Amino acid sequence: NRVRIEDPFWSEYIRLVREVVVPYQWEALNDRVPDAEPSHAVRNFKIAAGMEKGEFYGMVFQDSDVAKWLEAVGYLLDQRPDPELERIADSIIDIIDEAQQADGYLNTYFTLKEPEGRWTNLAECHELYCAGHMIEAAVAYAKATGKEKILQVACKLADCIGEAFGPGDDQIHGYDGHQEIELALVKLYRATGNGKYLELSKYFLDERGKAPHFYDEEFKRRGGSTHFPSLRIAKDRAYSQAHLPVRLQKTAEGHAVRVVYMCSGMADVAAETGDAELLQACRDLWSNIVRRRMYVTGAIGSMAQGESFTLDYDLPSDSAYAETCASIGLIFFAHRMLKIEPRSEYADVLERALYNTVIGGMSRDGRHFFYVNPLEVWPEGSAKNKVFEHVKVERQQWFGCACCPPNIARLLASLGSYVYDVKGGTIFAHLYIGGEAVLNVEGEAVTISQHSELPWEGRVRFEIGLERPTTFALALRVPDWSGEPHIFVNGSPVPPEQFASVDGYVYIDRVWLDGDIVHLTLPMEVRRMRGHPLIRETIGKVAIQRGPIVYCAEEADNGPNLHQLVLDPIASDGNGDPDDAGAKFQPDLLGGVLTIALPAYRIDDGGWEQSLYRPGGNVRLEPSTIRFIPYFAWANRGAGEMKVWVSE
Amino acid sequence: NRVRIEDPFWSEYIRLVREVVVPYQWEALNDRVPDAEPSHAVRNFKIAAGMEKGEFYGMVFQDSDVAKWLEAVGYLLDQRPDPELERIADSIIDIIDEAQQADGYLNTYFTLKEPEGRWTNLAECHELYCAGHMIEAAVAYAKATGKEKILQVACKLADCIGEAFGPGDDQIHGYDGHQEIELALVKLYRATGNGKYLELSKYFLDERGKAPHFYDEEFKRRGGSTHFPSLRIAKDRAYSQAHLPVRLQKTAEGHAVRVVYMCSGMADVAAETGDAELLQACRDLWSNIVRRRMYVTGAIGSMAQGESFTLDYDLPSDSAYAETCASIGLIFFAHRMLKIEPRSEYADVLERALYNTVIGGMSRDGRHFFYVNPLEVWPEGSAKNKVFEHVKVERQQWFGCACCPPNIARLLASLGSYVYDVKGGTIFAHLYIGGEAVLNVEGEAVTISQHSELPWEGRVRFEIGLERPTTFALALRVPDWSGEPHIFVNGSPVPPEQFASVDGYVYIDRVWLDGDIVHLTLPMEVRRMRGHPLIRETIGKVAIQRGPIVYCAEEADNGPNLHQLVLDPIASDGNGDPDDAGAKFQPDLLGGVLTIALPAYRIDDGGWEQSLYRPGGNVRLEPSTIRFIPYFAWANRGAGEMKVWVSE
Ligand SMILES: [Zn+2]
Ligand SMILES: [Zn+2]
Repeated sequence: NRVRIEDPFWSEYIRLVREVVVPYQWEALNDRVPDAEPSHAVRNFKIAAGMEKGEFYGMVFQDSDVAKWLEAVGYLLDQRPDPELERIADSIIDIIDEAQQADGYLNTYFTLKEPEGRWTNLAECHELYCAGHMIEAAVAYAKATGKEKILQVACKLADCIGEAFGPGDDQIHGYDGHQEIELALVKLYRATGNGKYLELSKYFLDERGKAPHFYDEEFKRRGGSTHFPSLRIAKDRAYSQAHLPVRLQKTAEGHAVRVVYMCSGMADVAAETGDAELLQACRDLWSNIVRRRMYVTGAIGSMAQGESFTLDYDLPSDSAYAETCASIGLIFFAHRMLKIEPRSEYADVLERALYNTVIGGMSRDGRHFFYVNPLEVWPEGSAKNKVFEHVKVERQQWFGCACCPPNIARLLASLGSYVYDVKGGTIFAHLYIGGEAVLNVEGEAVTISQHSELPWEGRVRFEIGLERPTTFALALRVPDWSGEPHIFVNGSPVPPEQFASVDGYVYIDRVWLDGDIVHLTLPMEVRRMRGHPLIRETIGKVAIQRGPIVYCAEEADNGPNLHQLVLDPIASDGNGDPDDAGAKFQPDLLGGVLTIALPAYRIDDGGWEQSLYRPGGNVRLEPSTIRFIPYFAWANRGAGEMKVWVSE
Repeated sequence: NRVRIEDPFWSEYIRLVREVVVPYQWEALNDRVPDAEPSHAVRNFKIAAGMEKGEFYGMVFQDSDVAKWLEAVGYLLDQRPDPELERIADSIIDIIDEAQQADGYLNTYFTLKEPEGRWTNLAECHELYCAGHMIEAAVAYAKATGKEKILQVACKLADCIGEAFGPGDDQIHGYDGHQEIELALVKLYRATGNGKYLELSKYFLDERGKAPHFYDEEFKRRGGSTHFPSLRIAKDRAYSQAHLPVRLQKTAEGHAVRVVYMCSGMADVAAETGDAELLQACRDLWSNIVRRRMYVTGAIGSMAQGESFTLDYDLPSDSAYAETCASIGLIFFAHRMLKIEPRSEYADVLERALYNTVIGGMSRDGRHFFYVNPLEVWPEGSAKNKVFEHVKVERQQWFGCACCPPNIARLLASLGSYVYDVKGGTIFAHLYIGGEAVLNVEGEAVTISQHSELPWEGRVRFEIGLERPTTFALALRVPDWSGEPHIFVNGSPVPPEQFASVDGYVYIDRVWLDGDIVHLTLPMEVRRMRGHPLIRETIGKVAIQRGPIVYCAEEADNGPNLHQLVLDPIASDGNGDPDDAGAKFQPDLLGGVLTIALPAYRIDDGGWEQSLYRPGGNVRLEPSTIRFIPYFAWANRGAGEMKVWVSE
């Protein structure tokens, strides 16, 4: 199946990745970005390859930045050839190949700094995490180019890992502190057909959280040394989801990115092996995340310390961690669940994370990024109250720990793969993103061209291309934000016998002819979202959403002190939803966004000069308006206040 | 002037201090409290005195715990003799005397651990802070007992300090990181009449924040060593108010306790020297604290990191630091300002801090204490979200850094000194606390017996005792929580020519006769306090206050999820304030408190099983009641939610 995106909204993002992010990232990896913290990532490989002299520099997981870049390049080349980019990629592949040790081991930190320390501190040192990213890159690059060199590096590395780890007496019975190898090994299994990679992935998953505890044992073996002495990584087992065997974990605990990477690996293994217990564990964790611990923007991770989940319904807007990578990982997890069991809930969450947190993580110039994605900021407060020390109120150029920007790049570069799935005789349309897809439906090539007006309007048009009349079902997702959809095939309603609605998808099952046209309209209106009443943060407040887009109010449009704005409650006259009247597409604003203006009141702060508290009286309100922009577009007009949840 | 408290509300607290806190503290200082962190404070003095072998243990300011205990003992002995307590105090005084070095230096940390390090790290090491507490103890103990031994220790110590610090070429041009010596030296000046102590106090104040910066210079001199390597104390000048000369500081910055101790010293020096500029600086800082940076409970310090002020109107309820000591220091500052210029505002804040944060800091058994006094807690959230790591939801037995409990003890033991002031021919009644006072009004002994029904009712009765008819003004404070007061002298209204109202005090100026009776009624009703609209935390919420008492809702009375309760807005029918109908004194609850019950709604959380967010609709409300107890009595019935600011 091949999907090429051609979409008024998304093509620009993919262009940015191709023309700005990936080239910029290459410069950053090579320490050629002025004023940015040095990466040293490419130099580490060159030094390990014996091509340069020097010392390792950077985080213990610095290698993964190169791998994520290479993976993104693979996806870009899969879309269309780019000889210059491929030449650059081949050159770094040659270096990586040289840096790999004779036995397949590949990690520049350990090779250069602690050659004796290999596999001695899995809890903290990300060796298998870096390996996983290299494997993902290799699979993507080999698929795009047909070149096997990096895939051979990956297989040698995986084989080296498979020798070191496993149930044997001479093997280490352990697993990495940061999950990633698990999902990567399943990709390698799919690319090579070699079942031992799948088995190794399952081994890592099932070893996790066993007693006696691996972290304690390796800690003892290495004489109690720690890599991050200020953290308690090896002792705080829940931080890396090693507090319980994965099959027994019912709540998402600890570092958010690790949780969703782990869940992705679990779903992969469950999909390949049919392991029902593992699948149920995935469902349980999914349910805990999306029903208890996810922000309305699709962000996850309520706490900066440990970049972590906290507890059910604890979703503070201002001190949120809400890492971009965590939402990307949630998309990985959702995508895998969707392939296993097509339920619209998975795609709804995927879409929510994608249209809000993920693209909010990048500026419109492709050169500035958010790591942390709060739902409310007060710049003066963030500057002075250390509870908000992790919050930036403007996107930053690059980061010393640069996990998020390359993660955005590899996701956007592979966005096409999220649009459709084929399962048996059914084509699922999960996302409404325009472009051309060529799909293999039980041996028959089906071409679908999609035109979509999302995210601003709910009109979508599909044109089917076929060699010959073909029977299949086209399953169209009905998003959670949509009213009752209107569907026409070649201008006519779908006859009941061709129509079914299951798990949030509308199935149109018929004999399709070349040139058939499907019109789908998803009614989209301004909605006031309320949080579960157990969420303390959102009580008495609403978040504005229209289609997949969550909105926010910014100081640039509303002046300071956004907390003084109170939305006028909806008139209860039953005359439809008047909120949509305030929706207006503004082509010249922030690259073209639909804005929303709603009637509101502003709490008057006059007459308070001498008092900090005073008794009685009602609050004085002045009629006002709250002007909302899409959350993803915030912080593009200088530092200012921002708020997703507004008082009503 | 002597004041003996005899009051239905306060006598019990003073009994607790005498019978429980001070004896318990003595056990703690001697490491005889099971399960409590060891103090070692007395042992440090014994070792320094050569009476025992061993090593210093504890914080660098551990000596101050002994001094604060001794100061409290002084106040208790001043109220009434207690030979056994005095014997114990004399025994520790003998040890302290032995521990003092020949040149007057007294600090067990430096004597035992770093004898060469004396006066080399003022920014971090609290030497002058400890000295200040010893001086305060000495003045209190000598006044109570007439015994001069500890006062001589204090004078030798102050002389040693006066030799080390000052403008001379051979002296250190510096000041302590933690203010305390300044106010202590003024006490010593008042006790001894020796003007050089006043001068030294002024020197320390005016040296603070000068350029080139003393912290940098001493840092260089000692080769860049730091005592608390994980903190940035010497570099973060605002932390200890050394960012600007004190006369130029307009906002309260940094560590809250230090700010108010500094301000107390400034006010003392201004009072003694008539320094108008210094007094104005006190007024500016006062105004910034009470009009911009104080909680409705009289707590200060919005942030755990640095135990600090943050910025104007940043007053989070749940992550507040709000240290008990900081409110005690605010009382010290208020008391000094009140003596300089009797304006009810100072006493209002003093009373607010006293009746809410300070007594809230201690359990009703006198054995458990709060260091941090949040205005809202969610125990499960505090346990899991590290933003609240500093918050305890139940009072703790003792603390490794035990600043707060002895500070509560010394304040309550000296509470009588806060009730009245005499200024010229006027007696000011600042606080309505029952008891007997003998006051010297221009050479004439005036006895006042006060009977007060505060804090539950506003009825106060004064009986005047005189040798002969005497002319003076009795100035009665009209608290900020009071309606129009009713005043009767011997059953009749005060004739206009004897009556004046100035700066929040009602002056009754007449020829008083022995046995004259004044009845004062301060109308007290349930008030809904609102925060300034620039306070983000309090928008849309009210705090309940009645008289000086701020209320809170607890889980014990209201069930969990206090955030789901919304107070019914006040009926606007103008028929008086119906809220007082919900007020009821409950003699058997929490030692006897007046509780308040107000009509409210509870947000229904039914029907939300499957969603974390959902659109539209209004919130379903069920009629309910919010039951409030005094804030000071919270957390005496097990761990549970608590909330001062409730939605309206
Ligand atoms: Zn990241
Ligand atoms: Zn304290």
